Amino acid sequence: MPGQAYTKLAELQRRTAVLASVDELVHWDQETYMPPGGAKLRSEQCALLSGLVHERATSKEVGELIEQCAGEGIPSGSIEAANVREWKRDYDRARKLPREHVEELSRTRSIAQHEWQKARAASDFSKFEPHLDKMIDLMRKSAKYYGWPAGGEPYDALLEGYEPGATAAQIEKTFAPLRTRLSRLIQEISASGVRPDDAVHTRDVPRRQQEAFVRFAASAIGFRFEDGRLDVSAHPFCSGLGPGDCRMTTRFRDNNVMDALSSTMHESGHGIYEQNLPAEAFGTPCGSAVSLGIHESQSRGWENLVGRSRAFWEWCVPHAKELMPELMADQSVDSVYAAQNIVEPSYIRVEADEATYNLHIMLRFELERAMIRGDLSARDVPREWNKRFKDYLGIEVDKDANGCLQDVHWAFGLMGYFPTYTLGNLYACQFFEAAREQLGDLDAMFRKGEFAPLRQWLTENIHRHGRRYAAGELCKRITGKELSAEPLMRHLEGKLKPIYGLA
Amino acid sequence: MPGQAYTKLAELQRRTAVLASVDELVHWDQETYMPPGGAKLRSEQCALLSGLVHERATSKEVGELIEQCAGEGIPSGSIEAANVREWKRDYDRARKLPREHVEELSRTRSIAQHEWQKARAASDFSKFEPHLDKMIDLMRKSAKYYGWPAGGEPYDALLEGYEPGATAAQIEKTFAPLRTRLSRLIQEISASGVRPDDAVHTRDVPRRQQEAFVRFAASAIGFRFEDGRLDVSAHPFCSGLGPGDCRMTTRFRDNNVMDALSSTMHESGHGIYEQNLPAEAFGTPCGSAVSLGIHESQSRGWENLVGRSRAFWEWCVPHAKELMPELMADQSVDSVYAAQNIVEPSYIRVEADEATYNLHIMLRFELERAMIRGDLSARDVPREWNKRFKDYLGIEVDKDANGCLQDVHWAFGLMGYFPTYTLGNLYACQFFEAAREQLGDLDAMFRKGEFAPLRQWLTENIHRHGRRYAAGELCKRITGKELSAEPLMRHLEGKLKPIYGLA
Repeated sequence: MPGQAYTKLAELQRRTAVLASVDELVHWDQETYMPPGGAKLRSEQCALLSGLVHERATSKEVGELIEQCAGEGIPSGSIEAANVREWKRDYDRARKLPREHVEELSRTRSIAQHEWQKARAASDFSKFEPHLDKMIDLMRKSAKYYGWPAGGEPYDALLEGYEPGATAAQIEKTFAPLRTRLSRLIQEISASGVRPDDAVHTRDVPRRQQEAFVRFAASAIGFRFEDGRLDVSAHPFCSGLGPGDCRMTTRFRDNNVMDALSSTMHESGHGIYEQNLPAEAFGTPCGSAVSLGIHESQSRGWENLVGRSRAFWEWCVPHAKELMPELMADQSVDSVYAAQNIVEPSYIRVEADEATYNLHIMLRFELERAMIRGDLSARDVPREWNKRFKDYLGIEVDKDANGCLQDVHWAFGLMGYFPTYTLGNLYACQFFEAAREQLGDLDAMFRKGEFAPLRQWLTENIHRHGRRYAAGELCKRITGKELSAEPLMRHLEGKLKPIYGLA
Repeated sequence: MPGQAYTKLAELQRRTAVLASVDELVHWDQETYMPPGGAKLRSEQCALLSGLVHERATSKEVGELIEQCAGEGIPSGSIEAANVREWKRDYDRARKLPREHVEELSRTRSIAQHEWQKARAASDFSKFEPHLDKMIDLMRKSAKYYGWPAGGEPYDALLEGYEPGATAAQIEKTFAPLRTRLSRLIQEISASGVRPDDAVHTRDVPRRQQEAFVRFAASAIGFRFEDGRLDVSAHPFCSGLGPGDCRMTTRFRDNNVMDALSSTMHESGHGIYEQNLPAEAFGTPCGSAVSLGIHESQSRGWENLVGRSRAFWEWCVPHAKELMPELMADQSVDSVYAAQNIVEPSYIRVEADEATYNLHIMLRFELERAMIRGDLSARDVPREWNKRFKDYLGIEVDKDANGCLQDVHWAFGLMGYFPTYTLGNLYACQFFEAAREQLGDLDAMFRKGEFAPLRQWLTENIHRHGRRYAAGELCKRITGKELSAEPLMRHLEGKLKPIYGLA
């Protein structure tokens, strides 16, 4: 039986979570349906809501109740103990940044984002440089305010905001073998002379057919449309407002239904995670997702490990032929499977394939880590970017818009965020190996369109725990091992070498 | 120069208005895009938001600042003075209901609404009776808490929430001549033997064509889509979130594009009002709509006085032929104009034509006034309803679902609301007579698709003032007269008699 303080705290936090869910809805609307004229009022609405949420989350009362929970004899290892631990973590962290710093960050972010847009449009880094410079300075200050564990480095303080418990040193240790082996694999693929036909990525498909197809796929893998939506936005995203209401978006290009499919499978992965968090725990840490890395493991898992597998297409091709007869007339399982696994170095991260993608991330991780350490100034970012890009991916960056100006993250102060994308890929592969060991032949299930066993396994092992276990601990509990690069390399080599005729 | 207290109060109230605009958005989403599973979380979001808005609006600080404004020498007759007057009115009214009463109302409303739905589905008033009985009791209590001016009656206290300054006695005085004359006109029409062809109301029109057509019409009359939206909901409504963001909805029936047009014209009228409130005054009374009656004068004005006029169709028919060629192939200005003005007694208020509609309203006004006076108990409602329905409209109510169970208002505790619909019709006709006097031949403008002069006149005379003048005062300022039934009767007789071949 939880004590009085715990009960009161849980009630307070639930109300704050309800208010935060309104903020989520308002952001969703901004990206989907808000008319252009609504932007000014919207910015006031968002500022007010996030202010109210912050005020509640950092109130003295919450702090006092957290302290009082310590005297209520909550059994260690229990869900309640995990909630108090995480509430304390969030509370302490949220109170570490002084108000003036938060305000300066917010102002700088607005300006930097605006200037970044202009700089990218002009492909002229010099326009963005002073703003990046300022942002690096502010991020370094944030890191100092947050602090980091002994033996760590400032970057860890930022990472903690996205991947609690992770450190730069660990990540570097996991990434290092990947960098060499991935570069080698990509070179071998380039040299193979094999270039699968990409017809399915270049043909016009009517919008209605595209929509029917991606909705069919999302339903099939288990996104519940009665508890969620799929809409359209410039940049696909997924927002789990709370139990029974998860909103994801995708985008449609006239001539590439597979782009819409990938986005939809990806966001469905996020959505399935959100939809299977324990509803009764909404508003508590054990009712929320663990970390961005684990979230990304779900989206990447469904997008790549399921959606780019041969087994998936053995099941899917007949349905695709029914829903998009013109596109699919001359296509086969082999042709679609190969087209979905084309590997080719390219400039833009968000358009990169499954293999090259991680090199894009590693480059960003290294650069931002150096920025936060004080080893890399804004001015040197383009040179350093282009140099590493050539090293890892073998191509020369032709312009800043195709290089260090392509992502909004740094303008937005999201440093420490990028590595979670590759952590997600790594977790996904390691989790799927464990799932295969425990569930048997996943591919045989996929071939029959049976995705429920995998989904239920993910719920049982990951979703239902919320933040009960930190990402690293979760990984060990599920797979018996620390996170490693091996499963990802096994997956990529195992899949890509046969397609490209490599030994 | 406004003083310190005024400035601070305005800032506080603006923030409350921003929060209230979030509540509006959340309600809009609930009617348009929310997935079914989101209902439970949504009810928590709404309860929390409306609680926060109420808390802010009724805070001691607001009350103190309002009092302090009195000492700041605000010139009487100024916009600031009007704001303080209205703030005080809202504040005093909001604080009159004790918390327990508000909570009981809210509980009763949820249950009554639910039971009303079941009763309507079964067309069995006895199921709803105890809930209506309870609601009457609560409404009578509300009236007591609010109080009413000397010489008035309890119903006035409720009316004040929707049509500030109006009284039951005044309304009855305005409605009385209407009742007799409208009944007579409707009888004459029924006896005329003329029944215009209703082909345009019965033929299937593809959804895309319907959408294009109603959007074209809304744009043409001046709804700004860059500052608003048109979506679909079961019951069309319009919600002005604030400057730059006004959301209206309509509905589409396969075989009646004119239904979608009427809804869209109606909601556009509301939308045009909201879009032309002074943006800089957002969050103050002088930036908000006056009353439901005046709001309805705008929607009814565009829907009926413009949208069912011959001049409108002289302009619109060629466009309709272009956008819906199959529907319009055999149609002419005469045929559409006549079809849009079919008058025929029917059971359901929301489907009633321009003439019979007001009799539906008068019946409800009389019944709810009697309920609040204590002269009519829930048990006697069906009998009283059916009797009057026969008297006014000449037809026997066949079942409760087609009679006193058709509207949700009473289950929701919206008593004092119904008369604003007919007040809207009356205001609209009286305003349009003034507009014709001042602008000249409005029909000549409509025939050319020129709706801007009328719209600008409405903005100049009504929209831009917000709540500066109460509805009655506004009416006198614009038309030089008290509200009367004459303009509405002149309008209906002038239009309908020729169509039905009456003298």
